[in-house]
Amino acid sequence: MTTLSSAALSAQHIWDHCEELARCSEQPGALTRIFLSKEQAAASQLALHWMREAGMQARIDAIGNVVGRYEGDKPGLPCLMLGSHLDTVRDAGKYDGPLGVVSAIECVRVLNAAGRRLPFAIEVVGFSDEEGVRFGATLLGSRAVAGTFDPAALAAKDRAGISMREALDNAGFDANALSAAARKREEILAYAELHIEQGPVLEAEGLAVGTVTAINGFSRRRVIITGFAGHAGTVPMRLRQDALTAAAECVLAVERIGRGEPDLVATVGRIEAFPGAINVIPGEVRFTLDIRAPRDELRLAAVAQITAEITRLCKARGLAVAFETLQDNPVAASAPWMMAQMDAATAAEGLPQFRLPSGAGHDGMAIADIADIVMLFVRCEKGISHNPAERVTLADVDAGARVLLRFIENFKRPA
Amino acid sequence: MTTLSSAALSAQHIWDHCEELARCSEQPGALTRIFLSKEQAAASQLALHWMREAGMQARIDAIGNVVGRYEGDKPGLPCLMLGSHLDTVRDAGKYDGPLGVVSAIECVRVLNAAGRRLPFAIEVVGFSDEEGVRFGATLLGSRAVAGTFDPAALAAKDRAGISMREALDNAGFDANALSAAARKREEILAYAELHIEQGPVLEAEGLAVGTVTAINGFSRRRVIITGFAGHAGTVPMRLRQDALTAAAECVLAVERIGRGEPDLVATVGRIEAFPGAINVIPGEVRFTLDIRAPRDELRLAAVAQITAEITRLCKARGLAVAFETLQDNPVAASAPWMMAQMDAATAAEGLPQFRLPSGAGHDGMAIADIADIVMLFVRCEKGISHNPAERVTLADVDAGARVLLRFIENFKRPA
Repeated sequence: MTTLSSAALSAQHIWDHCEELARCSEQPGALTRIFLSKEQAAASQLALHWMREAGMQARIDAIGNVVGRYEGDKPGLPCLMLGSHLDTVRDAGKYDGPLGVVSAIECVRVLNAAGRRLPFAIEVVGFSDEEGVRFGATLLGSRAVAGTFDPAALAAKDRAGISMREALDNAGFDANALSAAARKREEILAYAELHIEQGPVLEAEGLAVGTVTAINGFSRRRVIITGFAGHAGTVPMRLRQDALTAAAECVLAVERIGRGEPDLVATVGRIEAFPGAINVIPGEVRFTLDIRAPRDELRLAAVAQITAEITRLCKARGLAVAFETLQDNPVAASAPWMMAQMDAATAAEGLPQFRLPSGAGHDGMAIADIADIVMLFVRCEKGISHNPAERVTLADVDAGARVLLRFIENFKRPA
Repeated sequence: MTTLSSAALSAQHIWDHCEELARCSEQPGALTRIFLSKEQAAASQLALHWMREAGMQARIDAIGNVVGRYEGDKPGLPCLMLGSHLDTVRDAGKYDGPLGVVSAIECVRVLNAAGRRLPFAIEVVGFSDEEGVRFGATLLGSRAVAGTFDPAALAAKDRAGISMREALDNAGFDANALSAAARKREEILAYAELHIEQGPVLEAEGLAVGTVTAINGFSRRRVIITGFAGHAGTVPMRLRQDALTAAAECVLAVERIGRGEPDLVATVGRIEAFPGAINVIPGEVRFTLDIRAPRDELRLAAVAQITAEITRLCKARGLAVAFETLQDNPVAASAPWMMAQMDAATAAEGLPQFRLPSGAGHDGMAIADIADIVMLFVRCEKGISHNPAERVTLADVDAGARVLLRFIENFKRPA
């Protein structure tokens, strides 16, 4: 099989585009870009522009995903889909998501510049919501593409009380027409995603890249504890029904149970006390749970144990507690044939082959419902992500993009 | 001493005015009216109007207090000052503050309707900030009147990042001219405040009203714990520096120490985790402390113990912690001669005399710096306050106002 020289590929291009996207942020000096925000609209325009420069037909789909298509050696062929997300967490790093999108665009730019057409189309997708920051439900963009978007999520509200339905309308989308973003299984040969590792394994191994074996499953819940608000000066300690002291016991129980198994992680990332005044005993506390494991049975057992312990702790204090299921995602395994082709591309670029699981969720979890998937991880400094200290090296960006380009050039779905 | 028949007094007036003020709220269906808000401006206009209807000269002072003056039997006499506050906590009850203001206005209305002038002026003040919800520092209105407003507080910021200085400017006040609100000691004969009890004592005693012996002291702190934010899926439990799990231990320590002494209360009313996303380990948590006791040495010992314990807990987890002092208020005792006159007024209205301390802070704490003070508590249902379930009865409103009117009519500062 012929391969294109990857000399034409520019890691600096990719780097500069990550910098440019990082300036599309809610606040100066930090990076926050959430679903359906004006910052996201600006980032989408950049991605559209770069896709077109790279020789793609580009559009924004019904849920705000940016979709670029590079035809194969004849028009209308099924595609190899490449993608990652363009939204971020709050106070995020610059590479979680964008690196995969702009690396894929750069690969297509190189192919186009060389006038190279493959026996399949390539589509690059910049998903509009993977992190789920705004509405507490993740993978909204990739689920819409997979045709598994749950319309019940449209009622979810953000911090300002705006429902997803309203937010879509305000951003110029039609909440009743999201199914137009869904793709057919026969349109997609496979899905491949480049992403920073967001963990410490590649760094510990001294490797630039690795092939992902599976994405850990995760479960997310909202917990609402109801006590009784009262005056912080006049209600004796023994007569209080303080929802926050109960929640504090629950947060520590989540940590304790999470520590019980080496492969398990359990996190409370958000907490709010109501009414939230310095001189008022909290009458209600809401917090989130995020529980992940590489085996579904381990995760589900942890969810059951945490739910039971929180229920017991609140009951012991005479407080009411309610749980809302926000999301449950099973483990998503990479296709063995795609892992083999990614390993081969790694070796062809002169890099050691290495495989590792993903502790983080990714858009591939959703796309796995309509296509075989694989991921390529790029090393990040100290495994730090979801943090402004997120760092990659230009050399590793180059290595990742070269392996992805080689994977694309040599891609062939087995008969 | 002659006394006016209190038959002309209308508890229904007072009740209706509390209802009307409750409609000046940030949100429909709940009551939140904070310092320098447009809702507060609306409430101030109502109070101005009622004061003028009651025969007073009324104005808004340099920090937004509403001040009404009813001259004595000759103009320019020093005044008996009556007052309470017009701001509220978030999701508040209708009586905490407003009941004292509108009861005092009603007393003046009755005097004025009877053409009665006393050998002293009466001033009624609706303080613009007692609760301290917006900027974390309480008693702003009454401190300005006492001339003890700390200009350093002007730099404090609200949740939206607006400083007190900016908020004053936006509301049409001059942050550099707050001293114009200060009153001279010789202008004020004494200060009396009617307020709901906000505790369970009067209800337990079966009494409508009681004379307050002292206002408990309080200390307020902000605690900031700094850990390290990270991805909730990829950072193993053992490598985390989770600021929220550390804060949870601290919240439970505050509760434990607060329970250590029967007269002590310690509350965490606000907590925020940053960045505050479901899939990010909190890198920073901020929470508030509110610690109160009827003896200053007990309160200060509790503050020292809580500070030491929080420091120890964070150190044990390898996290940094910082404390900010928001406020320290010593115990404010009622003047014995004023308690005696309030007891006498209670007896004169045919009610049993009863004395009790105040667990809550009140504007009298600030005014005590320039005048002798006393308070009259009115029973509230189940002791519930700082809660929409705050309730009083019309009969108790009537009893409170009648005692206050009798106290005013018979008021005489000892030689």
